[in-house]
Amino acid sequence: MAGNRMGTQTIVFPRQPRLIAMHSIVGPMEGRGPMAEYFHEILPDDMLEQTTPEKAEKLILEMAIEKALNQKNLTKEHIQYYIAGDLLNQIISATFSARSLNVPYIGIYGACSSFAEGVGLAAVLLEGGFAQKVLVGTSSHYQTAERQYRYPIELNVQHKVTSQHTVTGAGAVVISIDGEGPKVTHATFGKIVDMGVKDPNDMGSAMAPAAFDTISRHLEDTGRTIDYYDLVLTGDLGLQGLKMLRILAERNNTPFGERVQDGGVLIYNQHQGVGAGGSGCACSAVITLGYVNTKMYLGELHKVLIVGTGALLNSLTALQGESIPCIAHAIALET
Amino acid sequence: MAGNRMGTQTIVFPRQPRLIAMHSIVGPMEGRGPMAEYFHEILPDDMLEQTTPEKAEKLILEMAIEKALNQKNLTKEHIQYYIAGDLLNQIISATFSARSLNVPYIGIYGACSSFAEGVGLAAVLLEGGFAQKVLVGTSSHYQTAERQYRYPIELNVQHKVTSQHTVTGAGAVVISIDGEGPKVTHATFGKIVDMGVKDPNDMGSAMAPAAFDTISRHLEDTGRTIDYYDLVLTGDLGLQGLKMLRILAERNNTPFGERVQDGGVLIYNQHQGVGAGGSGCACSAVITLGYVNTKMYLGELHKVLIVGTGALLNSLTALQGESIPCIAHAIALET
Repeated sequence: MAGNRMGTQTIVFPRQPRLIAMHSIVGPMEGRGPMAEYFHEILPDDMLEQTTPEKAEKLILEMAIEKALNQKNLTKEHIQYYIAGDLLNQIISATFSARSLNVPYIGIYGACSSFAEGVGLAAVLLEGGFAQKVLVGTSSHYQTAERQYRYPIELNVQHKVTSQHTVTGAGAVVISIDGEGPKVTHATFGKIVDMGVKDPNDMGSAMAPAAFDTISRHLEDTGRTIDYYDLVLTGDLGLQGLKMLRILAERNNTPFGERVQDGGVLIYNQHQGVGAGGSGCACSAVITLGYVNTKMYLGELHKVLIVGTGALLNSLTALQGESIPCIAHAIALET
Repeated sequence: MAGNRMGTQTIVFPRQPRLIAMHSIVGPMEGRGPMAEYFHEILPDDMLEQTTPEKAEKLILEMAIEKALNQKNLTKEHIQYYIAGDLLNQIISATFSARSLNVPYIGIYGACSSFAEGVGLAAVLLEGGFAQKVLVGTSSHYQTAERQYRYPIELNVQHKVTSQHTVTGAGAVVISIDGEGPKVTHATFGKIVDMGVKDPNDMGSAMAPAAFDTISRHLEDTGRTIDYYDLVLTGDLGLQGLKMLRILAERNNTPFGERVQDGGVLIYNQHQGVGAGGSGCACSAVITLGYVNTKMYLGELHKVLIVGTGALLNSLTALQGESIPCIAHAIALET
């Protein structure tokens, strides 16, 4: 048995696959936020001369992949699997980026938890000896997400205070059994948690219990406390979801405190008019590959738990009166 | 290294995970087709007293899961991971079925190749020692697919001769490192192949080159010829796609002959008015878990290559003038 412990939800990776090459791209709005200095690339505009935002999102993901490979002079021939997902119907950004890459492709869907899900699966393939290098990529785009899940931005529909702003950007990372970079030491794949929240304009509240469940399981499985980590970074709970998560932890008599931060809260300034903060597949990807990786490289962070959070609704389930099933997948990164 | 051979696209599973418990459900139309006797369950109607076809599809998948577990007196506590995907936006059938199951959930998307993708990933988790039992499920529904990808059935839009009929049904299977049942000996995860076909009413022609690529890779990697297998079963190429696949094989001077069959061709009688045949995530799942498994149990088939085929378009990419990226994932089952 390679690295798991049966009876727990958490996989241990003794071979410690590493994040060896990566690239994070964001749009102009994210480039004016407080995390700007950490991203590899800030785009001057979010359309890149494409005729539709869907084509722009695909191009941004392809750019992230190409530059991640270039960072360590890798080519697609070095990669055994490409794992990718995004928010669009039938994950078209992931698939179309896979077309240009031409390596075996494993499409995934975990909404905004897709990045963590992909890194976890990549670590499984590497730890199990099925690959030496796996590429993980994900993207999201404000315009594509708005018109698919809500309204075309041209309508200028007013957002609620709990609404979140989809991050325009993409992240790609090569994870390898050899090389230098943050080590993936554990993965805790989450269960679906649905506490009955039905408001698609408050996905933070819907997702917070899933984040709490996965973090709790991870700590229980590993015998760690929240203080073991320098940072526990949820993907995109936003202000509302992060508040809910802290309340859940306090009620459980295990207050999380300031060690738990959220990518959706960190990525924008409040004066940018983003409601409760950022969201989208790219959110946790660019914060992890930009901010967390840089801080690990600088020796300012050593142990980080990435908790990708996903609200697994679609626009039709909301209209049919269903509540929002949510999930969180956790990945432990250590130097 | 546990079972892979670097430099090839095919994973070998020396521990040979087994399909130990399964259930295939189909709708009434599939229940009048030539495969009827092999399915575990035929539904009297395709709505099951639900208010929407999406709710019916979710229920059918949940039924398949429950009955697959019951077949070997298993409970959800025996399962370490649930891997699932379907055709609907944001794979809602998979996610909502995961909500009622409450085990760690890995959402995937490979269109109609999702079943083979899921079985391959399950085998990876089992071979690598990360789990002892993994559940894989998938579903599709004629009404949900028509109104999402094409038109609501109430419009009664005429279909083309190359159009395919989405199978209503679901399949669920428990794959285990111990127990009795067909062994998963190899998996060949496919690359995206896109030969430029843009007609969403001819997905068979679009997918055939992907099937050919994956079958060719699998045979090359394993040193086998097509005759090694008693049956090579593509998922849902339909009459048009199967014809294309045979032409590709002949042009390559490796004619496939009658050993290569297609689930979409097998599942309906031509007089049922199904255009080029069946399609959908459920198609390859129910043919594999119903027909192939029964024939293996009876000793009439011993070596079968399941080739799940997926057309990874969405309704928007077709409107934006994109061609159809396709994929095929192959799984070798042996007794």
